[in-house]
Amino acid sequence: MPSSNPRARHFPPPMSSTSLSPEGEEVAEEEQVVTPWEVSAKQGGKIDYGKLIDQFGCQRLDQSLIDRVQRLTNRHPHVFLRRGVFFAHRDFTDILDAYERGDKFYLYTGRGPSSEALHLGHLVPFMFTKYLQDAFKVPLVIQLTDDEKCMWKNLSVEESQRLARENAKDLIACGFDISRTFIFCDFDYVGGAFYKNMVRVAKCVTYNKVVGIFGFTGEDHIGKVSFPPVQAVPSFPSSFPHLFSGRENLRCLIPCAIDQDPYFRMTRDVAPRIGYSKPSLIESTFFPALQGETGKMSASDPNSAIYVTDTAKDIKNKINKYAFSGGQDTTEKQRKFGANLEVDIPIKYLEFFLDDDAELEQIRREYGAGHLLTGEVKRRVIEVLTELVERHRRARAAVTDEMVDAFMAVRPLPNMFS
Amino acid sequence: MPSSNPRARHFPPPMSSTSLSPEGEEVAEEEQVVTPWEVSAKQGGKIDYGKLIDQFGCQRLDQSLIDRVQRLTNRHPHVFLRRGVFFAHRDFTDILDAYERGDKFYLYTGRGPSSEALHLGHLVPFMFTKYLQDAFKVPLVIQLTDDEKCMWKNLSVEESQRLARENAKDLIACGFDISRTFIFCDFDYVGGAFYKNMVRVAKCVTYNKVVGIFGFTGEDHIGKVSFPPVQAVPSFPSSFPHLFSGRENLRCLIPCAIDQDPYFRMTRDVAPRIGYSKPSLIESTFFPALQGETGKMSASDPNSAIYVTDTAKDIKNKINKYAFSGGQDTTEKQRKFGANLEVDIPIKYLEFFLDDDAELEQIRREYGAGHLLTGEVKRRVIEVLTELVERHRRARAAVTDEMVDAFMAVRPLPNMFS
Repeated sequence: MPSSNPRARHFPPPMSSTSLSPEGEEVAEEEQVVTPWEVSAKQGGKIDYGKLIDQFGCQRLDQSLIDRVQRLTNRHPHVFLRRGVFFAHRDFTDILDAYERGDKFYLYTGRGPSSEALHLGHLVPFMFTKYLQDAFKVPLVIQLTDDEKCMWKNLSVEESQRLARENAKDLIACGFDISRTFIFCDFDYVGGAFYKNMVRVAKCVTYNKVVGIFGFTGEDHIGKVSFPPVQAVPSFPSSFPHLFSGRENLRCLIPCAIDQDPYFRMTRDVAPRIGYSKPSLIESTFFPALQGETGKMSASDPNSAIYVTDTAKDIKNKINKYAFSGGQDTTEKQRKFGANLEVDIPIKYLEFFLDDDAELEQIRREYGAGHLLTGEVKRRVIEVLTELVERHRRARAAVTDEMVDAFMAVRPLPNMFS
Repeated sequence: MPSSNPRARHFPPPMSSTSLSPEGEEVAEEEQVVTPWEVSAKQGGKIDYGKLIDQFGCQRLDQSLIDRVQRLTNRHPHVFLRRGVFFAHRDFTDILDAYERGDKFYLYTGRGPSSEALHLGHLVPFMFTKYLQDAFKVPLVIQLTDDEKCMWKNLSVEESQRLARENAKDLIACGFDISRTFIFCDFDYVGGAFYKNMVRVAKCVTYNKVVGIFGFTGEDHIGKVSFPPVQAVPSFPSSFPHLFSGRENLRCLIPCAIDQDPYFRMTRDVAPRIGYSKPSLIESTFFPALQGETGKMSASDPNSAIYVTDTAKDIKNKINKYAFSGGQDTTEKQRKFGANLEVDIPIKYLEFFLDDDAELEQIRREYGAGHLLTGEVKRRVIEVLTELVERHRRARAAVTDEMVDAFMAVRPLPNMFS
């Protein structure tokens, strides 16, 4: 799948009514905007990921890199790699070069705990991070930005902390190895070495710079302006003395959706000025809403996404009722003309979650040729998603409060690199 | 001494070349500017403290309040109260009303540890705070803003922390009661309940607001923009759970120089919005430089101030050579016309540090009438300051690293209110 295939994104609505370019200027509505809080394509269109690579200045993750990952890890590349879900990177080659020489690295990813229930799009970076952790056998830090959500969503401190713990259970359910994983909430962990790094970063970034990167306005509160260093500093091993003391030169690899790139452009800009290595990134497209890649998405509309709390019946109903189809209106026309796979959401969802390449290829071929009907493809999507969600639900139900405490304990990880 | 008596201030030079009014507009050079980083009088003039009270919207600390303090504490008011050094307040009456009903409060003051050696002006708020602590028998928190100085002065984190510990020794030498005093550095203490309050405050303050209050520009780094909540939250008892758990309604009184008022205007504005009491303030004038109240002061000129590290010889030399005199040029003219006490620095310094009201009055009378010569008054100032500095030096030499650790330990204060 070409990485320029656009994917809309299921995300909270924009926080500000003004769209700002990375240069901080107001832009006409038809330009695409991708910031951590706003993703909008050109009017009626799709996100142009190729253009985003140029605009952000990151690199395309090409087949030769995927082949190299396969060779180095001695395993079949993850479906998200094979199908271009993770399509861009920054200095991922440096990580692989170092790994090949025998140097390890650590993974850093995170989540803003803004809602009780995660949807499938939320799982994408974590499923991929688990694969990377298993394949490279490296430690992982996961930041839950309860402070960010408290500030952006106007939640109370206590509610943000509660959501962070609930979300931690979903992440643990993704199967991370406790002997290599440290999960932390900002409200618990900010302080000490972490706060010192926040100050070191903040000193290097002007207000004009964050306006350019994030599009803040003068009416935004200063909590927002203060936040970028909080998300920046887990990129530096010295922010985690209990994990990486004596390994301050360890490289960091950040798997994330590409809307988080602005944080790490800033981080990479600052890093050498404070004597640290730039983190590397491996970046994904956005997960499409049920209504299609061009539609407006709404966090307040539960029918625009499949949640990990949805029942089998919910999933069946949502897919059948809301998943945008590229198939023809009637059986006859479908048999004759076939489906438009480019806009078909069931096919997109299978591309994310159906691991079997041969089966996917067969479905694409037969559906595109009109031998399969939309209902038949939807049935398969429902099976795949129901199994995924059921598996997640079982795993999450097994996560106890004690396990959350154990993952979040400030402790050494004795088997980090083995 | 009327509180509108202007006093120049011995402070670091302005951080920004642009003067901003509290409304954030550029102002003509002849307007006085008082922010935490810049104090400048109208051209060639003195700070107009009466105007500052109007401009900031604080209240004058009048004789009836001083009498009330005397009655409630059953002791002679401190020289800084009697002589109008602490000349303004915000809701100090509320503190006294509550105290009269049997409710206690706590004191909060602080220092930005930007230099190794303190000068006499730095001691003023701490000498006064010690008096308040002894007189009211209340707990005290002292914030050392090593993070602020790291950001404003471009010091390394480590150097800021070292200076904070050195400065802590000077504060301890002021005689604070360890059973009622908690000293903390931001780099050590930010986190947990304190960080949560920082976020609660930051959510309530827009960027435009801090520009209006502090005069930041777009080229200032975001560390500066992030800092005001750090100085705000020690005003709230819940920032110190190890001290005030279960006493979240305790009132806070902040003794400080009036240039710190902007931080606490912001704090008082936010407090009710997050369910907290507004802190009360008691505010001082600035300590004059040796060269006089109208002269330009420079932090890089060691001859503009008496330092607590100065030797007896240094003090004698500085006073004789640099202390601006209101006396006449010749003995004959002095005998005939007397000194102009309004501009005389030896007299100002005696007003701060000569406790004996009768002796001060006699010196003022005789010097003003020409019976005393400048050299004679300077001799008395040299005696008073040498004794003060010697006493401080002896007290500081007795402060061990273990005592610093003890004052800075996160611990309950068992005898806080007794």
